[in-house]
Amino acid sequence: MIAVESLLNGNRLALARTLTQIENNTPEGRRVLDELFLHTGQAHLVGVTGAPGTGKSSLVNQLARYYRNPPDGSKSRRVAVVAVDPSSPFTGGAILGDRVRMRDLSGDPGVFIRSMASRGSLGGLAVATSGVVQALDAAGFELVMIETVGAGQAEVDIARLAHTTLVIEAPGLGDDIQAIKAGILEIADILVINKADRPGVENTERALKSMLQLAHPVEHVFQDQVTHHQLYPEQQPTESADVGDERLWEIPLTRTVATTGEGVGKLGVFIDQHRAYLKSGGGWSRREKYRLQSELDSLLQATLVSRWRVSLPKEKYVSTLEQVVRRQVSPWQAVKYLLDGSEA
Amino acid sequence: MIAVESLLNGNRLALARTLTQIENNTPEGRRVLDELFLHTGQAHLVGVTGAPGTGKSSLVNQLARYYRNPPDGSKSRRVAVVAVDPSSPFTGGAILGDRVRMRDLSGDPGVFIRSMASRGSLGGLAVATSGVVQALDAAGFELVMIETVGAGQAEVDIARLAHTTLVIEAPGLGDDIQAIKAGILEIADILVINKADRPGVENTERALKSMLQLAHPVEHVFQDQVTHHQLYPEQQPTESADVGDERLWEIPLTRTVATTGEGVGKLGVFIDQHRAYLKSGGGWSRREKYRLQSELDSLLQATLVSRWRVSLPKEKYVSTLEQVVRRQVSPWQAVKYLLDGSEA
Repeated sequence: MIAVESLLNGNRLALARTLTQIENNTPEGRRVLDELFLHTGQAHLVGVTGAPGTGKSSLVNQLARYYRNPPDGSKSRRVAVVAVDPSSPFTGGAILGDRVRMRDLSGDPGVFIRSMASRGSLGGLAVATSGVVQALDAAGFELVMIETVGAGQAEVDIARLAHTTLVIEAPGLGDDIQAIKAGILEIADILVINKADRPGVENTERALKSMLQLAHPVEHVFQDQVTHHQLYPEQQPTESADVGDERLWEIPLTRTVATTGEGVGKLGVFIDQHRAYLKSGGGWSRREKYRLQSELDSLLQATLVSRWRVSLPKEKYVSTLEQVVRRQVSPWQAVKYLLDGSEA
Repeated sequence: MIAVESLLNGNRLALARTLTQIENNTPEGRRVLDELFLHTGQAHLVGVTGAPGTGKSSLVNQLARYYRNPPDGSKSRRVAVVAVDPSSPFTGGAILGDRVRMRDLSGDPGVFIRSMASRGSLGGLAVATSGVVQALDAAGFELVMIETVGAGQAEVDIARLAHTTLVIEAPGLGDDIQAIKAGILEIADILVINKADRPGVENTERALKSMLQLAHPVEHVFQDQVTHHQLYPEQQPTESADVGDERLWEIPLTRTVATTGEGVGKLGVFIDQHRAYLKSGGGWSRREKYRLQSELDSLLQATLVSRWRVSLPKEKYVSTLEQVVRRQVSPWQAVKYLLDGSEA
């Protein structure tokens, strides 16, 4: 039994054990999450995403340093990093790299780093990540950075876990990546051009600026983005009274060189400004609500499917699949048969 | 009403209309799929995936050319291309690029190109892609290439739709991409180093070779890969009697330069050899079965969730979500309440 008290009091071993239980989705993990939940909602959740090759990990590393020792003398903050790699369903490839890169922070008790590989099925990764983030939040980390490798749907789902989403770009990554930006851009609260000491940085900046001009204002985009996965899309954040008098967030476009730390302080300020922006308007609570709704929906779907699976006689499933393979019934007909029992 | 006969007879307009119905998951689309299904199972499905910047689209374009006019004088084949972009939930960014690049093939009635953006929810894209591929198969395209942009979980799911999966790499794409390879490599039947006229090609080849040596033999890997999304993992392809006497497929590692066409003919030969390999052993039917099972499971899950959603009173959902947002009940407690009706 994990003692929730020791986790809340900052015991790292208790935290690490809890995270493993959560990742493995054990009854113990769910019990602890139920107890922890009351203590969540304090941390600033910062998503960091972008195409491969943009230097996200190094930048996250530098940001962690910055918040530990703010050069302006402000209070040091406790920082957790969750490095998620949805592209690695089989191995821990990228994860190892991250760990090596962050080694120099690992002696600091105010920093906690956790790497997560994909769990595969049914948005399992997003659910596990959400649980891990809740535990870190409850354990008192004031800033939780959620870093994802890659730029696909999984990254978008994970970015939705955050209050503030950083999209990282870099000069000279080619046409395909340019194209990907079109989609990923629209989830950005802050746009970062990392590796800004490389040739081509002006071109990248120009391209991003023109894309930003094409994009919708951020609150509008946030609503669009919501429509995809919701059980009840009507529960999206809407342009209600508490939004009307709010100024819009202008997405900053800022340059960094993670290898030298250049621009990282400025980026840190933008991140804090975005938090203040959300807190001053209705943005913070809207994103909280949206985030929790996403999680609730994912859990509902996963639970529903696993319960039904248990109730279905295996022989019925196997013989129906055989009929599909022999092209005697179509997949849709098979679904009707398995769910309704009517002959396909 | 779409006349299925005209689609089967090669009417492009009927085909295009059908694909739209399938993508939008309309009752008409499902009806046509039910009718078509009997006529599927002929096409060789070739998945093409890899990190951004590797030149996948150009390579697919060249392969289509190759199969239309085989330089060895063998029979021309009808080729369909399905370009899937899971990283673009909001816009059609990358898709446009593909279309432009393939324009020079679009006058050929033996070539059909379809671009698909992400549909968002619940494996919707994989399901829609599967339907589109079935329609193209039934319409008589002998080769259907399924190209995905990116290298995440979505790509892995889509690669599973194919009989033969090409993983495309390119020299000099940086550490992050190197790391991604570790996961994506394991779904490859054929490994391609495109842009092989670039510096660093020897390094890339050496790195891939050593990764290949670390990897499991292909049939074994294929089984591993299956464990993720199945309702009944016991139904995986197993090392049964019909596999025991089969030689293993040695994953070829081959170089191409899509811009000039160099190496494309050789790649085409490898693709045909893999088809022959699958057909001569039990591989073809095992992959067919696996593929159809994946599709059946996805459809079952999606249907299950949408039916339950209809049965749940909206007020109950909304008030439960409110309690979660106020941290009065945890997400797991809310799930229990919504599914079982017991007080959270």
